[in-house]
Amino acid sequence: MSKLNLTMLSDFYEFTMSNGYLLSELHNKTAYYDVFFRSVPDQGGFAIAAGLEQVITYIEGLHFTNEDMEFLRAKGIFHESFLHYLADFRFSGDIYAVPEGTPIFPGEPILTVRAKAIEAQLVETYLLMAINHQSLIATKANRIVRAARGRVVLEFGARRAHGIGGVEGARAAYIGGCDGTSNVLTDKLYGVPSGGTMAHSWIQMFESEYEAFKVYCSIYPENTTLLVDTYNTIKSGVPNAIRVFKEILIPQGVRDFAIRLDSGDLAYLSKKARAMLDDAGLTNCKIVASNALDEYLIRELVQQGAKIDIFGVGERLITSGSSPVFNGVYKLAAVEDENGRIYPKIKISENSSKITNPHFKKVWRLFDRKTGKAIADQIGLYDEIIDDNAQLTIFDPIEPWKRKTLKDFTAKELQIPIFISGKKVYHSPPLDRIKAYCLEQTEHLWEEVKRFENPHKYYVDLSERLYRLKNDMVNKAKADRSQEK
Amino acid sequence: MSKLNLTMLSDFYEFTMSNGYLLSELHNKTAYYDVFFRSVPDQGGFAIAAGLEQVITYIEGLHFTNEDMEFLRAKGIFHESFLHYLADFRFSGDIYAVPEGTPIFPGEPILTVRAKAIEAQLVETYLLMAINHQSLIATKANRIVRAARGRVVLEFGARRAHGIGGVEGARAAYIGGCDGTSNVLTDKLYGVPSGGTMAHSWIQMFESEYEAFKVYCSIYPENTTLLVDTYNTIKSGVPNAIRVFKEILIPQGVRDFAIRLDSGDLAYLSKKARAMLDDAGLTNCKIVASNALDEYLIRELVQQGAKIDIFGVGERLITSGSSPVFNGVYKLAAVEDENGRIYPKIKISENSSKITNPHFKKVWRLFDRKTGKAIADQIGLYDEIIDDNAQLTIFDPIEPWKRKTLKDFTAKELQIPIFISGKKVYHSPPLDRIKAYCLEQTEHLWEEVKRFENPHKYYVDLSERLYRLKNDMVNKAKADRSQEK
Repeated sequence: MSKLNLTMLSDFYEFTMSNGYLLSELHNKTAYYDVFFRSVPDQGGFAIAAGLEQVITYIEGLHFTNEDMEFLRAKGIFHESFLHYLADFRFSGDIYAVPEGTPIFPGEPILTVRAKAIEAQLVETYLLMAINHQSLIATKANRIVRAARGRVVLEFGARRAHGIGGVEGARAAYIGGCDGTSNVLTDKLYGVPSGGTMAHSWIQMFESEYEAFKVYCSIYPENTTLLVDTYNTIKSGVPNAIRVFKEILIPQGVRDFAIRLDSGDLAYLSKKARAMLDDAGLTNCKIVASNALDEYLIRELVQQGAKIDIFGVGERLITSGSSPVFNGVYKLAAVEDENGRIYPKIKISENSSKITNPHFKKVWRLFDRKTGKAIADQIGLYDEIIDDNAQLTIFDPIEPWKRKTLKDFTAKELQIPIFISGKKVYHSPPLDRIKAYCLEQTEHLWEEVKRFENPHKYYVDLSERLYRLKNDMVNKAKADRSQEK
Repeated sequence: MSKLNLTMLSDFYEFTMSNGYLLSELHNKTAYYDVFFRSVPDQGGFAIAAGLEQVITYIEGLHFTNEDMEFLRAKGIFHESFLHYLADFRFSGDIYAVPEGTPIFPGEPILTVRAKAIEAQLVETYLLMAINHQSLIATKANRIVRAARGRVVLEFGARRAHGIGGVEGARAAYIGGCDGTSNVLTDKLYGVPSGGTMAHSWIQMFESEYEAFKVYCSIYPENTTLLVDTYNTIKSGVPNAIRVFKEILIPQGVRDFAIRLDSGDLAYLSKKARAMLDDAGLTNCKIVASNALDEYLIRELVQQGAKIDIFGVGERLITSGSSPVFNGVYKLAAVEDENGRIYPKIKISENSSKITNPHFKKVWRLFDRKTGKAIADQIGLYDEIIDDNAQLTIFDPIEPWKRKTLKDFTAKELQIPIFISGKKVYHSPPLDRIKAYCLEQTEHLWEEVKRFENPHKYYVDLSERLYRLKNDMVNKAKADRSQEK
C-alpha cells in the first residue's frame, strides 16, 4: 500500500474548489483546518487516534502524474493554469497532530493543517479517510481488548473487511491493543505479528479428523492450534486433539499448543473442553475461541467463566460492526493575511454542538499529579500556555457556571509538529511503541470514562480567551443575520 | 489499485495449510470450493453480487516476489520445497461465478473454484474479501436507490470509508444503482462518473456567502450546485443562491443548476427552498440533499413529500452502516481423484442451516414465462440439466412436503466460466452494462422479495439428486459418529 499514489483518492469538489481558489487568487492564502470528531463510536467514553502514519506517507507521496492531469483536463472544467499548478504540486505547509494511540475526545482538534488554501483543500479527503478509518478500528479494538481482561485478542477479519483497507484496519487493531492478526500483508508492511493454523477445509481434505490433526502436528509441532468443531466438538474434535497431542507433541516435549472452538455455545464448550484437557493432563493446552465475537459477547463469556485463553475476533472488529462510522470532519478554523495576522473563522449552525471552535488552537491534557489520572482537556489559542505550577480554573463551555479550580496538576500539550513547511519533522515510533503508548495512556483514564454503558463525559473545555472569542463571533454572526432580514 | 500485488493479502493459515498440503502430497489433488453467503444484510430479501472484476485482476496478478519469499522464509516454519513452489506459483484452475450485478440469495454458490488444493486454498482470503465487500455495498446501494424511487442517488462516502477499499466500494455502489460518486480515483480507475462542487470551506474563504456563490458560478456556470447551509439556509443561503443564479446564470441562458442542503430538517427545508426557488421563477433549479442518509431516511423523506431531486449518500452507504458485514464463506464441496472422479464433501454442523451443500454444483434461476418474474432458484449437480420444455417439480429442502410443479417456465444457469485451466475466458462488461444488468435483473424479482420489512423468502431449492445425496451424507456422518462413541 505504501507504494500506491493516492493523490487522486479525493472528492471531486476538492478539485473544483482548488481550481476556484487559484482563479480567484485565494490559493496562496494561508488557511488553518482542524480535524475533529463529533461522537464516540458505540456511545463510548473516548476514542483512540490512529492513521497518522498513513497520512504522513500520503503527504510525502503527493504528486500528480501526467495521466492524472490528462484525466482532469478531459473533464473540461479545469483551467490550464490549474493543471500546470498541479504538475508541480507538493505539500509545503505545516501539520500538527496527536500521536497515534492517544485517547481522544469529541470536539478537540486531533490534527491541524496550516497551509496554502489550495494545498489544505486538496488533502482533505484522504486525511479524513485515513484518520476516520484507523481511529474507528483502534477504538473498537481497544474496547474488545478491555472486555477480554488480559486474555489474548487476535484480529481475524480480513475476509470480511471493506476491501483492501483491511490491511491498515489490522494495523489499527494492533494499536488499539490486539496481540496479532491473521493478515499476512499487514505483517509484511507494518510488522504486526501474523498467525494462524487451519480452516475446516484442512480437516476435510483428510480421511479423518484424527489423520488431519496428526499430519498437522507432525509438520508444525510448535504452537499448533487444532480446530476441533468440524464434525462434533466434544465427541470427536477434542478427543482427537487430545490423542494427537499425546501421541505426537508430548513425546517431543512440546508444551505450547491449543485447540480452537469456532461455533456453538462457546461458554459451555470451553468449560467442557477445559475439563477434558485437564483430565488428560493437558493443563497447558490453551483454548482459542472465535465466531462473530465483539466486546459485548466477550464480556458475557468472561462473566460466565468461559475457559477461553485467546479470542479470535473477525468481522465485528474489522468493520466495527455495531458502530461502523467514525465521524471526523475537516473544518476551516482561521485564515492568515500577508502580514501573518491570523483571522479566526467559525461555522455557525442552528445546532449549537455543531458550531466550530474558531482560530489556530492548542489542546492540553490536564493530569492530577497525585493519581496520574486525566482530569480534563482544555482547548486554548495557539499562543496560550498553561502554567501547571499555578492554579487553573476550568469551566464547562456549555454550562459555564460549572467551574473547577485545579491545583496539583500537570499539563501536556497533545498535538505535536508533524510537518513544518512541507518537511517532515516527526518520525512515527515503531508500532509496538505506539501500541504500548496507547495502553499506557488509557490507564490514565478513570474507569468511569472507560465503561461501556453511560460512560462519564470527559471534560473538553475551552480556555477563557477561546470561549470569549467564540461567543463574540457567534453573537456577531447572529447580529449580522438579523440585519440581513 | 489494479497495479497492486495483493498476493500476500491473505490469512496466515492459507500458508500453513498450503505448506502442509505440499508436504503431505495433497497439493495437486483437485478440490472444489464454493463461495456462498448465509444471510442478507439488513434482513433484506436478496443481495447483489459484485467484486468479480477485482477477483479476476487478483487471479491474473498472482505471484510471489523474492521479498515475499524472504518474508515467509523468515517465519521459520515453511519448508524450502514450499518456498520454491511459490516462486513459480500461478493459478491454473477453473473459476465459475455469477456475473456482477446479479441478485443472489443465501446458500447458493455464487463463485466456485475448481483447482489444485494448494491453489484453491491460497486464493481464499482475497476472493472472500473482494466478493464480501463489494456485494455488501452493491446491495446497500440497491436498497437506497430503490428507496429514492427514481430520484438520482450519488455516492459521497470517501471520507468515512474503511480505508482505500472505499475506491472499490464506490464502484460497487454504482453497480447497485447509484448514478455517480464523489471519488475521483474510482472515476479514474473504473469510469464511474465523479462530481462535486463545494464544501463549507469554500463559502468561508470569502467575505460573504453571496461573494462565494458569485465567484463559483462565474467559474463554473454549467451544472453548478451551491451549498446553502453554511450560515442559515432559508434566511441567507437560498436567497443568496437565487440572487446569484439570476445575476450570473440566467443571463447566460444556463438552466442546469442546483442548491444543496446538508443539515437541518431536510423535508421542511426542501419544501421551503422549493417554494422560494419557484417564486423566483427558478423551477428548473434542482435540490440536492445530504447528511447521514440511508434507505430508511430517504423513504421517510419521499413519503413526507420532500422536494429533493438528488440524494448525496455518504457514510451509511460506503460502510453499509446499519448492517456492515456480508458473511460470504468459502467451503470445500468436493475433491477429485486422479481419474477425474468427483467425491462430494460436506461440513456437518449441529445447526442444520450451517450444513453445506456437497459436490460440484450448478445454480439455475427459474422464471415464469408469462410474467418474467423469478420463481425460485434450484441448486443441482454439475451434470444435471433443467429442461424448461418439460415440467419441473420443486420442493423446499427443509420442509420437503412443500412442493410445486412448474410448467410454463424458463431456466437460466447463473454461474458462467471465468477461468478455465488458469486462462481467463470471460471479459467483464463495461461498468455501465453491469449496472444496467443489475437494474434489469432486479426487475425480475417480485415486489414481495424487494420490500424492506419482512421480505418474502425467495426459494432456493435443491434438485432431487442433490437433496438425496446431502441427506445420505448427513445420515452417514451421524452413523459414523455414533460408532465412534
